Amino acid sequence: MSFRDDTTVRRVGDTSFEAAIEPGWDIAGNANGGYLLAIIARAITEATGKPHPVTMTAHYLAPGKVGPVVIEVESVRIGNRHATATAKMLVGDQPIIVALGTTTTLDVAPEPLLVDASPPALPSPEDCVLMRPMKPSGDHDRVPSFVDQVDLRLHPEDAGFIEGAVTGKARVRGWFRFRDDEEVDPLGLLVAVDGFPPTIFNAALPVGWTPTVELTAHVRAVPQPGWLRCSFSTRFVTGGYLEEDGEVWDASGRLIAQSRQLALVPRGGTSA
Amino acid sequence: MSFRDDTTVRRVGDTSFEAAIEPGWDIAGNANGGYLLAIIARAITEATGKPHPVTMTAHYLAPGKVGPVVIEVESVRIGNRHATATAKMLVGDQPIIVALGTTTTLDVAPEPLLVDASPPALPSPEDCVLMRPMKPSGDHDRVPSFVDQVDLRLHPEDAGFIEGAVTGKARVRGWFRFRDDEEVDPLGLLVAVDGFPPTIFNAALPVGWTPTVELTAHVRAVPQPGWLRCSFSTRFVTGGYLEEDGEVWDASGRLIAQSRQLALVPRGGTSA
Repeated sequence: MSFRDDTTVRRVGDTSFEAAIEPGWDIAGNANGGYLLAIIARAITEATGKPHPVTMTAHYLAPGKVGPVVIEVESVRIGNRHATATAKMLVGDQPIIVALGTTTTLDVAPEPLLVDASPPALPSPEDCVLMRPMKPSGDHDRVPSFVDQVDLRLHPEDAGFIEGAVTGKARVRGWFRFRDDEEVDPLGLLVAVDGFPPTIFNAALPVGWTPTVELTAHVRAVPQPGWLRCSFSTRFVTGGYLEEDGEVWDASGRLIAQSRQLALVPRGGTSA
Repeated sequence: MSFRDDTTVRRVGDTSFEAAIEPGWDIAGNANGGYLLAIIARAITEATGKPHPVTMTAHYLAPGKVGPVVIEVESVRIGNRHATATAKMLVGDQPIIVALGTTTTLDVAPEPLLVDASPPALPSPEDCVLMRPMKPSGDHDRVPSFVDQVDLRLHPEDAGFIEGAVTGKARVRGWFRFRDDEEVDPLGLLVAVDGFPPTIFNAALPVGWTPTVELTAHVRAVPQPGWLRCSFSTRFVTGGYLEEDGEVWDASGRLIAQSRQLALVPRGGTSA
């Protein structure tokens, strides 16, 4: 059981792939959105013949439950450098995700031309707060079983929400890698950008469950092996939506991915 | 001639719309990407029966030239609050843009729950630098005829690139509205988020033409009438790509749209 195994797709037609939402990637029964996008993105890379996602957008239509899925890919353009495709993940006849992505062959360690930011300062992984698997007596809303798959260590300053002590700042920082020393490749980065607790958990707002409407990830390079430094923040909760902006930096100190998602702030949840 | 007229779509089948890329929305012969996305988004709103884009992503495959286009929309899910569709803009058989969008009915003036930022401080529009239509003797690369359609006033601090004096900071701020007092609606915001000169023009980098690979815009609310305050910035030029993050604030001082685009930094252009 590994990210690679659990995101395997099998081509069953010119444009169709079979895959499965495997157990253990869920949060309270619903599969992690980044994991689902990684399955779709793998199908898109195979359909387009280019190995890496450079920009992937997913719109989430319905929760993903453990079981077989079909991914229908339409390659819209295959160019020399880039290829672009749409894809739907279906459970039976029901689309649960629709995606649009461009693939390419990314550089391994490109020299940056401009970097007007720094990786988040984090205590060593040993001094951060390990997100642990859900326990029967635990808080089911806040500790996903998804953390069986990933080794996710929160900055202690941002982890107080676990015990109900929010920082008041809608930010979550921490380290990310897969368990069992499986290195995070560009598809794995799609899990990293959706793998952390919601930033809103640290905001002093009457907002709880915020389902993702849309997630876009940009991948700039193939990450170097090792821990990833991640930072997520939210600046605007308005109009019934919030954004969550993410950055992922690799062990060599380079930015390798950016993400932004738009999540729904349920109207009922904001009137408390 | 107005934004409304120039983005009209005509349904010609269950999933097909006819439209035209009208003259005057181009930059050196290629239509502005936000204008093209607005045409597609209008087709998506009509196909899905919901009036406003809340999140729209476009991948740009080929330049848009003046002339007729067809937009093929596939509505993937029509829900109570949201509807989601993919769409292709075609010239003949060639797709030039593929898009993925979710539509809804946006609030007019939602009360924000969290705003951890401010609108950009700008001198009054009269004291900003008006982007003027291209003149025969002008610099064709930097002054688009697109500015015949929009009233675009740059912050004087960010306008030095026009005369070759870059700030060194990859940022562009300014005011936006349509000419002839046509108010900017949520579809018009798609033009605003792609309407300014590239941030990279203010960076002291050997990078010129940076074609957009992907543009995502989130619309939070229906803007109030009047000038829009806009700010665009780039923090990372690496791996052959750069991002450009945008914010649009309306006359009431509220954030109404966010955008991010991924643009290509041509490999040849970076070795100068």
